[in-house]
Amino acid sequence: MEDMKIIELKESILEDNDKDADVLRNELKEKGICLLNLMSSPGAGKTSTLLALKKYFDGNIRFGVMEADIDSAVDAETIREAGIPSIQLHTGGMCHLDADMTRQGIRAFGQDDLDLIVLENIGNLVCPAEFDTGAQINMTILSVPEGDDKPVKYPLMYEVADVMAVNKIDALSVFDFDKARMEKAVLARNPGMKIFYISAKTGEGVAELAEYLIRRVRELKA
Amino acid sequence: MEDMKIIELKESILEDNDKDADVLRNELKEKGICLLNLMSSPGAGKTSTLLALKKYFDGNIRFGVMEADIDSAVDAETIREAGIPSIQLHTGGMCHLDADMTRQGIRAFGQDDLDLIVLENIGNLVCPAEFDTGAQINMTILSVPEGDDKPVKYPLMYEVADVMAVNKIDALSVFDFDKARMEKAVLARNPGMKIFYISAKTGEGVAELAEYLIRRVRELKA
Repeated sequence: MEDMKIIELKESILEDNDKDADVLRNELKEKGICLLNLMSSPGAGKTSTLLALKKYFDGNIRFGVMEADIDSAVDAETIREAGIPSIQLHTGGMCHLDADMTRQGIRAFGQDDLDLIVLENIGNLVCPAEFDTGAQINMTILSVPEGDDKPVKYPLMYEVADVMAVNKIDALSVFDFDKARMEKAVLARNPGMKIFYISAKTGEGVAELAEYLIRRVRELKA
Repeated sequence: MEDMKIIELKESILEDNDKDADVLRNELKEKGICLLNLMSSPGAGKTSTLLALKKYFDGNIRFGVMEADIDSAVDAETIREAGIPSIQLHTGGMCHLDADMTRQGIRAFGQDDLDLIVLENIGNLVCPAEFDTGAQINMTILSVPEGDDKPVKYPLMYEVADVMAVNKIDALSVFDFDKARMEKAVLARNPGMKIFYISAKTGEGVAELAEYLIRRVRELKA
C-alpha cells in the first residue's frame, strides 16, 4: 500500500477567521461539497463513528475524511483501510484548525467530486469550538464514559455544534450517566441541537444518525 | 454553605513562561509547598481520582485542590463537599494555565500551610502539555475508554508528565485496550514514566499511587 499522504498545515496569517470561514463555505457550496466539522474529546469515538456510518453512506453519498492530528497517521490509515478516501493533516502542535488550515487540507486532498468531506478535528473540547472552519455542519460526539457534565464544563462546544452523537451507549450500565441531566444542560445552551444516541461498536442508533446526515448533505447540495 | 470562591484568572503578559515557571517552583519550594499539575482529557477522572486518594493522604499530607475550568464550579464543589480545601479557577476560555495564572490561583487560594496543592488543569491533552505551570510533579490520567493510542496521537503530554494513572480499569473488559501497546508507546517517549493502573470507582490500585505521591511530596519538602 502506498504511504499515507501527510500534509503539514501552515498557521494562518489571516486576521479575520470568521470572514474567511464564510468565504470557504461559499466556495464549497459552489463546488457542491458539504463540509462536516467533527469534534470531540480524545477517544470519544470520532473515527469509529465514521467507520460505522460508512455502510449507510455507501450508495447514498460519496464521502471522504480529512484526519487532523498533532502527530501520527493512525486514524487516516484506519479510515483508508476501510475503503474511504482519506488524508492526514498535521497541525504542527496546534490544538485546532481554522478556515485557512481547512482550505489547505481540502486543496491537498483534491477530492472535489465528493458530496461530503468530514474534517475530523483535533480531539479537544476547547479550542476547536472557538474557530469556524467553514463547515456547514458542526457535529460533536460525547462518549458515555466522559460523564454527563461535559456540556456544563465546556459550554461553547455545545453552543457551536448543531448535531451531537452520544457514543458508547453499550457501556451505559458501567457508568453513571444521566441522559436527562445531559440533555437539559445541552438544550439550555442550544435549543436546536439534534441529539442521537449511538454505539459505534454495536451499531445501535447509527442508522438514524446516518439518515439525518444524508438528508442534511442533500439539502445543502440542493 | 457559603458560595464557592471563583477566581477569574487574567491572561499572563509575561513572555518567558519557562523562566517564570522556574521562579514559581522556587517560591513554592521555599514555602514547603509541593505543586502537582494534573492533566487529562475531559472526563478521564481527574476529580474522582483526587477523591479516591483522599483517604490515603489524610493523616500523611495536607492537600488542597485548585480546579481550573472554562466554566462552572461543579468540580470544586464536589471536592469541597468531600472536605478538601478547594478553589475554582476560571480561565476565561483559555485551554490551559501558564505559571503566572497558576500563581494567581495559589495567591487567591491562600492555603500556604498545605503540603500539596493539586492544580486540576483544563481537560485537554494538547495545550496544558505546552505550558510549564511551575509544578514539581506533572501527572496525566489516561482512561481506558479513551483507547490505548492516545500516547501516539498526543505525544507531548506523555513526554512532559512524569507519572501517569491509567484509570477506569474496572471497565477493561468492555473496551479494547492493549496495555502492552500503550506502555510501549509511552516508554518510547518517556522511559522514566511511572505508570499506575487504577480504578477511582472501585479503589483498585489507588493505594499504590497514593504511596508513590506521598513519598514524592515528602522528598520535595525535605
